[in-house]
Amino acid sequence: MRILVSNDDGYFAPGIAALAAALAEVGDVTVVAPERDRSGASNSLTLDRPLSLRRAANGFHFVNGTPTDCVHLAVTGMLDHLPDMVVSGVNHGANMGDDTVYSGTVAAATEGYLLGVPSIAISLVSKQASDFSGAARVARDLAERFLREPFRQPVLLNVNVPDRPYEELRGQKITRLGKRHKAEPVIRSVTPRNETVYWVGAAGQAADAGEGTDFHAVAEGFVSITPLQIDLTHYNLMPGVSEWLAR
Amino acid sequence: MRILVSNDDGYFAPGIAALAAALAEVGDVTVVAPERDRSGASNSLTLDRPLSLRRAANGFHFVNGTPTDCVHLAVTGMLDHLPDMVVSGVNHGANMGDDTVYSGTVAAATEGYLLGVPSIAISLVSKQASDFSGAARVARDLAERFLREPFRQPVLLNVNVPDRPYEELRGQKITRLGKRHKAEPVIRSVTPRNETVYWVGAAGQAADAGEGTDFHAVAEGFVSITPLQIDLTHYNLMPGVSEWLAR
Amino acid sequence: MRILVSNDDGYFAPGIAALAAALAEVGDVTVVAPERDRSGASNSLTLDRPLSLRRAANGFHFVNGTPTDCVHLAVTGMLDHLPDMVVSGVNHGANMGDDTVYSGTVAAATEGYLLGVPSIAISLVSKQASDFSGAARVARDLAERFLREPFRQPVLLNVNVPDRPYEELRGQKITRLGKRHKAEPVIRSVTPRNETVYWVGAAGQAADAGEGTDFHAVAEGFVSITPLQIDLTHYNLMPGVSEWLAR
Amino acid sequence: MRILVSNDDGYFAPGIAALAAALAEVGDVTVVAPERDRSGASNSLTLDRPLSLRRAANGFHFVNGTPTDCVHLAVTGMLDHLPDMVVSGVNHGANMGDDTVYSGTVAAATEGYLLGVPSIAISLVSKQASDFSGAARVARDLAERFLREPFRQPVLLNVNVPDRPYEELRGQKITRLGKRHKAEPVIRSVTPRNETVYWVGAAGQAADAGEGTDFHAVAEGFVSITPLQIDLTHYNLMPGVSEWLAR
Repeated sequence: MRILVSNDDGYFAPGIAALAAALAEVGDVTVVAPERDRSGASNSLTLDRPLSLRRAANGFHFVNGTPTDCVHLAVTGMLDHLPDMVVSGVNHGANMGDDTVYSGTVAAATEGYLLGVPSIAISLVSKQASDFSGAARVARDLAERFLREPFRQPVLLNVNVPDRPYEELRGQKITRLGKRHKAEPVIRSVTPRNETVYWVGAAGQAADAGEGTDFHAVAEGFVSITPLQIDLTHYNLMPGVSEWLAR
Repeated sequence: MRILVSNDDGYFAPGIAALAAALAEVGDVTVVAPERDRSGASNSLTLDRPLSLRRAANGFHFVNGTPTDCVHLAVTGMLDHLPDMVVSGVNHGANMGDDTVYSGTVAAATEGYLLGVPSIAISLVSKQASDFSGAARVARDLAERFLREPFRQPVLLNVNVPDRPYEELRGQKITRLGKRHKAEPVIRSVTPRNETVYWVGAAGQAADAGEGTDFHAVAEGFVSITPLQIDLTHYNLMPGVSEWLAR
Repeated sequence: MRILVSNDDGYFAPGIAALAAALAEVGDVTVVAPERDRSGASNSLTLDRPLSLRRAANGFHFVNGTPTDCVHLAVTGMLDHLPDMVVSGVNHGANMGDDTVYSGTVAAATEGYLLGVPSIAISLVSKQASDFSGAARVARDLAERFLREPFRQPVLLNVNVPDRPYEELRGQKITRLGKRHKAEPVIRSVTPRNETVYWVGAAGQAADAGEGTDFHAVAEGFVSITPLQIDLTHYNLMPGVSEWLAR
Repeated sequence: MRILVSNDDGYFAPGIAALAAALAEVGDVTVVAPERDRSGASNSLTLDRPLSLRRAANGFHFVNGTPTDCVHLAVTGMLDHLPDMVVSGVNHGANMGDDTVYSGTVAAATEGYLLGVPSIAISLVSKQASDFSGAARVARDLAERFLREPFRQPVLLNVNVPDRPYEELRGQKITRLGKRHKAEPVIRSVTPRNETVYWVGAAGQAADAGEGTDFHAVAEGFVSITPLQIDLTHYNLMPGVSEWLAR
């Protein structure tokens, strides 16, 4: 089983080292990740310059681009074979609800999925994120299951793992994405050169975190697994918009 | 009616000038757009540095960030009131099917929608894109309709306009997003300093472009209007994944 | 007389508009400047990606690169003829003493000089920098003089203009670069995501600002003109280092 | 003896690993280097955003900034004591003649020197640059000498080492900087999205490479050591410019 590993925290992040080590127990792992922290990169693709691909001392590859660039370049220009899986993470911090729109971790997995490969994004729900081994082991379990029981169609799974020892995880729940409240406003600051600048504020608190959501599952100590799709069409709204335009 | 205008081609692009001029006929327009071309930026947010906001000679504002940053900063830190609409574009080139995943134009509108504002992304389906006036007029028509007939819920519309004079547009169609074939592989190149580098290749051709899709509507000469949503949950797959995990 | 104009504040800055307008009275002006603020860029060259060259509505060209990139690209790839002069500025703020090491304004002129063209860097000594017309007129005077009285060898002039009306300038002084005290330490800050970050602090105050220096001339109300060279060899120290190595 | 080590090729480059290892034999080494390749960065300082400082698994620190940023941040914000030396490199490729104007390797050492610390920039004159151990040992020899025989004033040395085994180096020569011919013109290219772009061309061949220059010493198999200064004033030209202005 050939597994392509990426992330958005950068190739040097402890989360990707833990992930690569865990997955090496079930397959051949190739790591291709951003050369620097690209958290918040979403699905951005680098179109105005070419990418370079380098190899670090530990064998990981790094790219001067986004998470999406990494998976795109690895699959379409570097690997001899289509990988059997793409696994992205372990992200330092949750990717739940609306986070998935902005997340580079999810985006790397999405690119694998768009290229026809079963893909998993895996995140550790923790601000400190000191121990990635539990989440890495969850990823390994899932990869093992894919190996043993191939899924009948390409699939994209967004996995969030509570910050507790592997043994204390209460199991897995299939969830839908919850919703967050609006993000905090930008935070005004002044540079040492007296220019006013603005920091993007923190993500909002969970708004829809009821039973069935990723927020709820994680809060209860379960691993949350949300199957994702990428068709943004709002089918339910099509008749309403149609009617509105006809007014 | 207060309208916030952004794009991903940069504040200096002819498409945003045409859009701002057309919308000024129906409301008060504020332009906040990226200081440089950010095509392909998707929903990326800048988290590792603060943003600056400057004002160009023509009154447009520009931000050293992504399209999402621009709308986020404008709504949460610059404007006194929540705008009545966010309009993003006119993009130089189509944003149909899977393009919507990568598009900064769609992302700017998505950010408006996430912040509770009815939002439109508008793109001109043309590689040359010499005349943005028709598409800008389509945007104005839609804004006028919003003013006259407020929509009963927040809405996010992805609009693609064929490259023909306004008078020759055949009307509007409510569409679903089509699908593209996989993107072209990366293109290997060598720098003057003998480093191998890789350009992200062109987007794939339309794969699902049948009746009802955005591709089909535009090919027939209609303005394509796709209502979008941002919940990536793959509801239909939830039972299947659940069953798979139980095996 | 063909004049190439650049800067480091970006093509949209009021200082370059004033400069281009003033120089247009004595020659054919082409503006090629960075697409965004590149203050502090020094002589950096972009080697890991290619540059794009675009044309703004007002006829100015902009490049997604550094001031050095702009002059390099204009002279070696865009202009049909070697320009007769390169003028960089009008910078928003002084470039005196050790500032010249870091300045992108000086760097753009340096690149012109390295390519064999008489070059001037011109800066307005002001933090507010509301009126660039006096400094622009000083640049025009110098260009006119070059036209009337060609200099016998390539020359690189670093010009700093006090912030007062043209009529109140007390004349010109040929100066040497002064020296600044060490820069302020970096300023520690914390991001909204609780990461510790560091802003580069302000430049130091003038340390050697005695008679004959640029600092002194400007403080007295004179335009300071310092001829620059680019050979960093410390000739006086060569014997000492030689003796030291022989110990 | 406390030694601060930096470079412009990035903290992961083999040249800096060899340098840090060699210097660890004579002092306490702290590495603070750019997180990505910043060749060509010259003395650029990052003024529009703050810098972050991270620690890699091997104990090296990396900064999302330029070589100058790294030394500036380390000395003014991170280290408890002023280091006894700053050593920058081992650069992959020569930094001779006019290269010193653009070099980030030289700039990191220059920043140390401006902050009052004896500083060395060390480069391996080789395009392949497979073995940095000889150059690293040259740096160690110099550091040892500084420790044994402190220099009477702050000094900035630019060292270029021929690409041959340490044992085959013919000795050291104190040199002046030579001169290169003008750089190659930019190289026009077309992106997969049909935009014309321009690569900065290769540096020119040596023009002044006669006896006494760095080029000459290295070609003869000697280590070239050039003491540098940072006062760009062209003293010899001051009377000529003065006279010219009086005409």
